[in-house]
Amino acid sequence: MKEKLLLTPGPTKIHPDILEALGRPIIHHRTTQFQDILKEVNEGLQYVFQTKNDIYLLAASGTGGMEACVANLVSPGDKTITVEGGKFGERWTELCQAYGGDPKVINVEWGKSVQPEQIKEILDGDKDIKAVFITLCETSTAVTTNVKAIADVVKDTGAILVVDGISGVAVTDIQTDNWGVDMVVSASHKGFMLPPGLAFVSVSAKAHAVIEKATSPRYYFDLRKSKKAFAKTDTPFTPAIGIIVALNESLRLMREEGLGNLFARFARLAEATRTAARALGMTPFPDDACVSNALTAINVPEAVDGGKLVKVMRDEHGVSVAGGQAQLKGKIIRIAHMGCVNEEDLTRGFTTLEKVLTALGHNFTAGAGVNALQESFSQKV
Amino acid sequence: MKEKLLLTPGPTKIHPDILEALGRPIIHHRTTQFQDILKEVNEGLQYVFQTKNDIYLLAASGTGGMEACVANLVSPGDKTITVEGGKFGERWTELCQAYGGDPKVINVEWGKSVQPEQIKEILDGDKDIKAVFITLCETSTAVTTNVKAIADVVKDTGAILVVDGISGVAVTDIQTDNWGVDMVVSASHKGFMLPPGLAFVSVSAKAHAVIEKATSPRYYFDLRKSKKAFAKTDTPFTPAIGIIVALNESLRLMREEGLGNLFARFARLAEATRTAARALGMTPFPDDACVSNALTAINVPEAVDGGKLVKVMRDEHGVSVAGGQAQLKGKIIRIAHMGCVNEEDLTRGFTTLEKVLTALGHNFTAGAGVNALQESFSQKV
Repeated sequence: MKEKLLLTPGPTKIHPDILEALGRPIIHHRTTQFQDILKEVNEGLQYVFQTKNDIYLLAASGTGGMEACVANLVSPGDKTITVEGGKFGERWTELCQAYGGDPKVINVEWGKSVQPEQIKEILDGDKDIKAVFITLCETSTAVTTNVKAIADVVKDTGAILVVDGISGVAVTDIQTDNWGVDMVVSASHKGFMLPPGLAFVSVSAKAHAVIEKATSPRYYFDLRKSKKAFAKTDTPFTPAIGIIVALNESLRLMREEGLGNLFARFARLAEATRTAARALGMTPFPDDACVSNALTAINVPEAVDGGKLVKVMRDEHGVSVAGGQAQLKGKIIRIAHMGCVNEEDLTRGFTTLEKVLTALGHNFTAGAGVNALQESFSQKV
Repeated sequence: MKEKLLLTPGPTKIHPDILEALGRPIIHHRTTQFQDILKEVNEGLQYVFQTKNDIYLLAASGTGGMEACVANLVSPGDKTITVEGGKFGERWTELCQAYGGDPKVINVEWGKSVQPEQIKEILDGDKDIKAVFITLCETSTAVTTNVKAIADVVKDTGAILVVDGISGVAVTDIQTDNWGVDMVVSASHKGFMLPPGLAFVSVSAKAHAVIEKATSPRYYFDLRKSKKAFAKTDTPFTPAIGIIVALNESLRLMREEGLGNLFARFARLAEATRTAARALGMTPFPDDACVSNALTAINVPEAVDGGKLVKVMRDEHGVSVAGGQAQLKGKIIRIAHMGCVNEEDLTRGFTTLEKVLTALGHNFTAGAGVNALQESFSQKV
């Protein structure tokens, strides 16, 4: 009878208004009815991406959106910059390599963020760098990148700045146009509170010029086709109609709340989560300077089996949080607080976390996490 | 207040049981709960595809599934065979060209199907043909290809036979293993009665051997990654969870009915549709020998504006049928009878068609189409 709760960083909990839209009879995509939705969706996305650039819809999950960026920018032999400070940064490297590119990899200790100077140094030393690929919120480590500072470094060079905003957009401020970010990719199943299967890619004029000349093979993800169809309020291939109809509801909810309020809400939830973790004698995994508001990664106490912690919370209590990936397996847990995750959800999350930590032998003052959470919630903004 | 009816060949009407599944709270994909669904889905797909081969799930629409076939088989310079007898056959050519392949194109008059001898002739003359790309049901012309006869011609050569079964699988008999078809691609939004956004690709051992050696760039659609993940009941990237959960309902409905009954039902609906069209003084567009059971293409009477016919049926009566594409624009209408389209739906379709044909000046005995339809339905199987 227990209702399941997702506090995982993708898929995230789906808002009831959006679930309702997902259960509606399907409509055909070659109709003015659907075109009206595409127009509204585009306005909403431009609001959230803070851009006047085209934003293309791809029927694919986030990685498909990332591949669209690489396939359209990177021709064989092209030099690029990638940042490996987590699993999703590594994906940019792998994608560049898959397309015959030559990525100059900046290695960053997991839990820290790349410094703009590191990117500047490579750009200064090599005028042929075609593109710089970074990650707004590195979901595997819960680290936020200072996109604005990096954009300042990249924007006057010939390089295209591409940001993986899959778990960052709609959660964390990214001023695409003001900061000069050329391409931003995001996906449906994180901050947008939708099922996975829809990716978004915004493209600047500077990026379009490179896309037109790139020589890597592409068809389904060919952004030249997307651009052409977009101009006619269409998509080049059958779109993910169901998710797009639901996206319209998601964007409506976000516009009602307002972007500033949205960002402030996630900042408060993130702050409360970190405070509660500390009250339980645990510490956030990332450096304080680069914590994420989309999700919080918390170091699991040494005496506790992190894998078991996640499993017991999920299987015995119905509360899903994420464990660590790769080198962080068993060492951290990740609690998402993006989309429509609310104070009550986090309270249930910490109530459960306390129960299971106790069962697994971690010592702390009973109720300390939940109390700290409430106290943090009650503070004036 | 009028309820809309989709008689379009993708997306197709969604069954109420499936809509219910689409509106359920989302589950996480890295759970035994989702793995159980993946296992059940795979069994169901193997039943429908009539194969023991792996069937990979891609979060993409049908063209993404087609690209997965080409990106994994066709290396630059590779010779292939494609058949252009409609828009979707042309897509195989375009995809082969996008990947630097050298497609030998067989041109077929629209409305006719390719002859196995045409393929045999090219294969006999060139032992280097890497793959043969055909279309089970060419949605743009409503033509069915004789896949069995073509498989007989291809199977003892080194070439890989790839079938676009996007609007054919789950509607028309395709005996993947018995006939020796190497790769079959299909998608969620046709016979499977789901929203678009999920593609399926079955892969034989013979195809896997070519895939391992192919050199074209690929990442999101890399079937080597799919194979590895499949062995662990997983997917390489975040799957289209919502549609996969609903697919399980779709496959349950199909297994309850049985594949033989399913095919017979569509054959009856298609026969009735052709009979009704003739009773209105109209003729099916394709040759009798290669009509499709998924959809019927009907020549629009010369005096009638085909574009207007489709528009008035949809905008004034809520019934969507498809018009012609490319060279057939305005010349045919296409009525789908796959998935859960039933006798009542086709009756409403023909009632509406009669009304609008009359309004647009076509002469026929009032009620002749609907009567012929009922008579055909009432005939013993």
